Amino acid sequence: MGTRGVSGRRPEAVFPLGRAGSPRGDGGRGTAAADEREPTMRTEELAELGQQLRVDAVRAAAAAGSGHPTSAMSAADLAAVLLAHQLRYDFDRPDHPGNDRLILSKGHASPLLYALYRAAGVIDGAELLTFRHDGSPLEGHPTPRLPWVDVATGSLGQGLPIGVGMALAGQRLDRVPYRIWVLCGDSEMAEGSVWEAVEAAAYEKLDHLTLIVDVNRLGQRGPTREGWDLDAYARRLDAFGWHTVEVDGHDVEAVDAAFAEAAATAGRPTAVLARTRKGRGVAEVEDREGFHGKPLPHPEQAVEELGGVRDIRVDVALPPPVTARPATPLRPAEPPRYRIGDEVATRDAFGEALAALGSVRGDVVALDGEVGDSTRTEAFARAHPDRAFEFYIAEQQLVAAAVGMRARGYLPFATTFAAFLTRAHDMIRMAAVSEAGIQLCGSHAGVAIGPDGPSQMGLEDLAMMRAVHGSTVLYPCDANQTADLVRRMAQLPGIGYLRTSRGAGPVLYGPDEAFPVGGSRLLRSGDGDRVTVVAAGVTVHEALKAADLLAGAGIGVRVLDLYSVKPVDTEALEAAADATGCLMTVEDHRPEGGIGDAVASAFADGRPLPRLVRLAVRTMPGSATPAEQLAHAGIDADSIAAAVRLLVGAAVVR
Amino acid sequence: MGTRGVSGRRPEAVFPLGRAGSPRGDGGRGTAAADEREPTMRTEELAELGQQLRVDAVRAAAAAGSGHPTSAMSAADLAAVLLAHQLRYDFDRPDHPGNDRLILSKGHASPLLYALYRAAGVIDGAELLTFRHDGSPLEGHPTPRLPWVDVATGSLGQGLPIGVGMALAGQRLDRVPYRIWVLCGDSEMAEGSVWEAVEAAAYEKLDHLTLIVDVNRLGQRGPTREGWDLDAYARRLDAFGWHTVEVDGHDVEAVDAAFAEAAATAGRPTAVLARTRKGRGVAEVEDREGFHGKPLPHPEQAVEELGGVRDIRVDVALPPPVTARPATPLRPAEPPRYRIGDEVATRDAFGEALAALGSVRGDVVALDGEVGDSTRTEAFARAHPDRAFEFYIAEQQLVAAAVGMRARGYLPFATTFAAFLTRAHDMIRMAAVSEAGIQLCGSHAGVAIGPDGPSQMGLEDLAMMRAVHGSTVLYPCDANQTADLVRRMAQLPGIGYLRTSRGAGPVLYGPDEAFPVGGSRLLRSGDGDRVTVVAAGVTVHEALKAADLLAGAGIGVRVLDLYSVKPVDTEALEAAADATGCLMTVEDHRPEGGIGDAVASAFADGRPLPRLVRLAVRTMPGSATPAEQLAHAGIDADSIAAAVRLLVGAAVVR
Repeated sequence: MGTRGVSGRRPEAVFPLGRAGSPRGDGGRGTAAADEREPTMRTEELAELGQQLRVDAVRAAAAAGSGHPTSAMSAADLAAVLLAHQLRYDFDRPDHPGNDRLILSKGHASPLLYALYRAAGVIDGAELLTFRHDGSPLEGHPTPRLPWVDVATGSLGQGLPIGVGMALAGQRLDRVPYRIWVLCGDSEMAEGSVWEAVEAAAYEKLDHLTLIVDVNRLGQRGPTREGWDLDAYARRLDAFGWHTVEVDGHDVEAVDAAFAEAAATAGRPTAVLARTRKGRGVAEVEDREGFHGKPLPHPEQAVEELGGVRDIRVDVALPPPVTARPATPLRPAEPPRYRIGDEVATRDAFGEALAALGSVRGDVVALDGEVGDSTRTEAFARAHPDRAFEFYIAEQQLVAAAVGMRARGYLPFATTFAAFLTRAHDMIRMAAVSEAGIQLCGSHAGVAIGPDGPSQMGLEDLAMMRAVHGSTVLYPCDANQTADLVRRMAQLPGIGYLRTSRGAGPVLYGPDEAFPVGGSRLLRSGDGDRVTVVAAGVTVHEALKAADLLAGAGIGVRVLDLYSVKPVDTEALEAAADATGCLMTVEDHRPEGGIGDAVASAFADGRPLPRLVRLAVRTMPGSATPAEQLAHAGIDADSIAAAVRLLVGAAVVR
Repeated sequence: MGTRGVSGRRPEAVFPLGRAGSPRGDGGRGTAAADEREPTMRTEELAELGQQLRVDAVRAAAAAGSGHPTSAMSAADLAAVLLAHQLRYDFDRPDHPGNDRLILSKGHASPLLYALYRAAGVIDGAELLTFRHDGSPLEGHPTPRLPWVDVATGSLGQGLPIGVGMALAGQRLDRVPYRIWVLCGDSEMAEGSVWEAVEAAAYEKLDHLTLIVDVNRLGQRGPTREGWDLDAYARRLDAFGWHTVEVDGHDVEAVDAAFAEAAATAGRPTAVLARTRKGRGVAEVEDREGFHGKPLPHPEQAVEELGGVRDIRVDVALPPPVTARPATPLRPAEPPRYRIGDEVATRDAFGEALAALGSVRGDVVALDGEVGDSTRTEAFARAHPDRAFEFYIAEQQLVAAAVGMRARGYLPFATTFAAFLTRAHDMIRMAAVSEAGIQLCGSHAGVAIGPDGPSQMGLEDLAMMRAVHGSTVLYPCDANQTADLVRRMAQLPGIGYLRTSRGAGPVLYGPDEAFPVGGSRLLRSGDGDRVTVVAAGVTVHEALKAADLLAGAGIGVRVLDLYSVKPVDTEALEAAADATGCLMTVEDHRPEGGIGDAVASAFADGRPLPRLVRLAVRTMPGSATPAEQLAHAGIDADSIAAAVRLLVGAAVVR
């Protein structure tokens, strides 16, 4: 963006009421004169600011040829009052630890946010009009390419659960009284993720969290279920334990009072339910259907109707100084070490390694979806109760809270069953857009869990996590490998995923061995190897057994432990292909999107490919023991050995 | 399962009070004597039945060595009363159109369901004890392998939204007064999907839907947020417009009255909130933590404490006769036809084709997530308003309702943006376990949508949908192809997915061409072709332009339209590989899990592979025009041509 036109401290900042009867062009910032002024704006000034935001939203969308100006216009007065009277934010220091946070959950109303930035003096009129243009950080929906945007929005219903994560961080970790303001639309109140957050926020008594609902009664294709029935929303929020305030969202004085009431309410979060009109201020579109998500039909007339371009600049209040909290003294614990040959489940090693990581890094936090006893996150919770968070059975909230805590500088590990992470797929996808390097662990992977059956089996998680932009996907086969990978996850730049297993398996590696991300381990090899079996997790053990079986029959096979599924060890796979000509992948996962696909993708630059054979879970499992499940899926030692024999016998491989 | 021990009509059915002071083994069904009896059970008989269900749950889990008996025991009295006094169900005719439906949303309490089946006389004691054994349909969590289970459960929070779909089918499609009974746990009330359903059910006035909440206050790893505070649940449900009844869940008389009140309540759904004790009846485990999801420590003593094995058999009421509703007369409309060369978006063709399909098939229903104007589902809604369902912005409910309607025999097409289908990933995964062949359409695929930015772009949907068991994944590039594929989706045995595009593109194919599932189309080919470009959707058009560019430079390339991403046309890919040696995939999707992986998977049987090069979306897009987006992602015509030139110039390809 351009340089800042106003100093960070802005003791001299002004309120030059730049009203004009007609558009005056994109005049920019006005002149900052050192007027004496009231600490707060007068009612008519607030109303003027609201009109400025509308005008700017209309102009931005007109310049872009797309966008959602009418959705911005309904919330303009709410945003004006928030910026002028409530938000405490140092635009020069977006990382100021005392800053309030504003999340525009209705991300499609992005022109409103950018109009706020112009009013705050951090972008100018020319920059505003780059909205939605190639290369502009003023994207169609807000992303952290702008320094004042903490998390991307645009998938509705995510702002509040992310705000819960931030507010929890403020309350229990930072212990700084910043406020989280979430501005959402009425349509998105239908998303279940909102109600997961509503419950969590009340339960955790997040009184520094305020939800502002812009009840403009019109969704994308027509009216919402509740229309302008503010009471309907209030009854629900109240029943969950929230304080609620109903208000005319275009009465700036009433809005001002409502926000003050929210800020003054202790012991529970507040929702300000604001009755508004979509497209407010322009008769041609106001409260009319058919104008969602498009520029106004006659933007110049609309700007005129709204009173023209203004250059009001708001002196946004700075956050109060924050006293650095003394760092919680850490009591470093040794990372777990396991003896080769002992039977240990990787989920157990995960829990112990995470607890150990937390003992040397105070920024590590652990988030549980009411399965901490199964995923073993409970080990962390026992060691670091102050940094353990319980979200009950609400996986969307679980992952969204991780995003919020990451935005506040923490390193969250969020864990549930691999199968149930699918519940939060959209939050994970959006976390990548938010550049939020959260760490996820999915336990109970694959058919190997045994009798619980397919509803509990993570069989699609590798496909889901590989396709996340910038993700790292790890799948350890033993306890020491797990412990090492957990340490490495703390260094990842993007989203990390660790897949753990329910059942115990023998420890294969020593406690001091290193497992770099992007690597692999050759566990068996000989000169006459005819196939390389590429396995990970539970299938590594099956592959080793198969190699023993085949060695007895004089057939040599290599076994490669592909613990890093993404990035994948291209070099090792190429070497294995060169040496044995044929690769056989074996995975406790669906055939699509997992290890087979990852291995194939290593040969995607036009070089000759090896022969590939894939063993994966191709049927719908029922209940059975783990050993039976692996056999039925055709990924146990016998199946691997049989497949190799078939290839060798058919002389398909040399 | 074994043969039925009791006739379907059972006019002679009995209530042989098989109480015994100590375990009597797995005695089976008792003797069916033709006693005269009251039409309803006496209080003490109901209580005895509850004890029988507990005993059977304990025995089943003990025989399995795993399972969740304590979760079954808390709900046993609720289930007993339901079976004996409320459920109208013909176990001989699970497809009886008048049958009530029972969904055990807390699927881990499956032994309770199987104990009900024994009490109903449709499985015997020996069968009960096959619980969780290899090959037994009595799986760890219920699946439709049992004829009386409509939908799989086990991923919490899905029963109610599926029940909403069934109840809507009853109310608006079947117009048969069957009741939907959903038994759920208190822990799962934290899932947002439950609240999406709570809102939908009240809004739609689904008075034939009853939610029974087994409030045993204990989750998996400890107490729930609300404990036994029934009022907390009641306030919330009431605020959404439900009728609620609070009851002691072990007082069978009170439960009986509560269910009767639910059945008699008109105009809104009813929730029966039942205070219960986990592990009820066995002091060692009752209301104690640490006994979730495991067999009782001393099952034989427990059975004794519960009064021993009983052989009570319940004469389940048959549904009232259903008068066949005259089929709604259809007014067949011609499927849409598009002229080659016209510019038409595939989303437009989808809407028109779906409307046409609905005009010849009365079982087709369309479900919208408040984006019908964008996805073009609105075309169906206009043509067939009685079969169009609006779920507002609640994608989990959207897909779960499709599962419920499918279970009632309809063919649902559920549609939203491809990006937002990720919100329902868990519901889609579970739909496969439910064997529910729902059809999904995701619009606004890829970076080609343009300025709206990454939050709105489906870039991971192919990966998600390919990994769904038994799925079909289709991605048309023109309007006539889309229309043909929509017709074919109606014939798919499993879950189908159609990916559509926002922008218009030229019609390439004639209106009478056929596009079989699993096929592909060779759009360009010549003798000297050096590379085959494999494209789908928007990249087909880019590939054709690239082929023109390259032809000008004397470089021949084939263009293959891979409209069927799963199953993939192995034969055509092999032929292309034979002919040109090198395949280049080009996709408007992340590099993982999509077309590149699908093409590679076609060469997974050990045969030699072609050289593969993959172009895909490897960066995080911002806002830009569609053309700019395709260029930035490196998947436009120029990028394809440049990549081919590089390969040819480097002599990587012949």
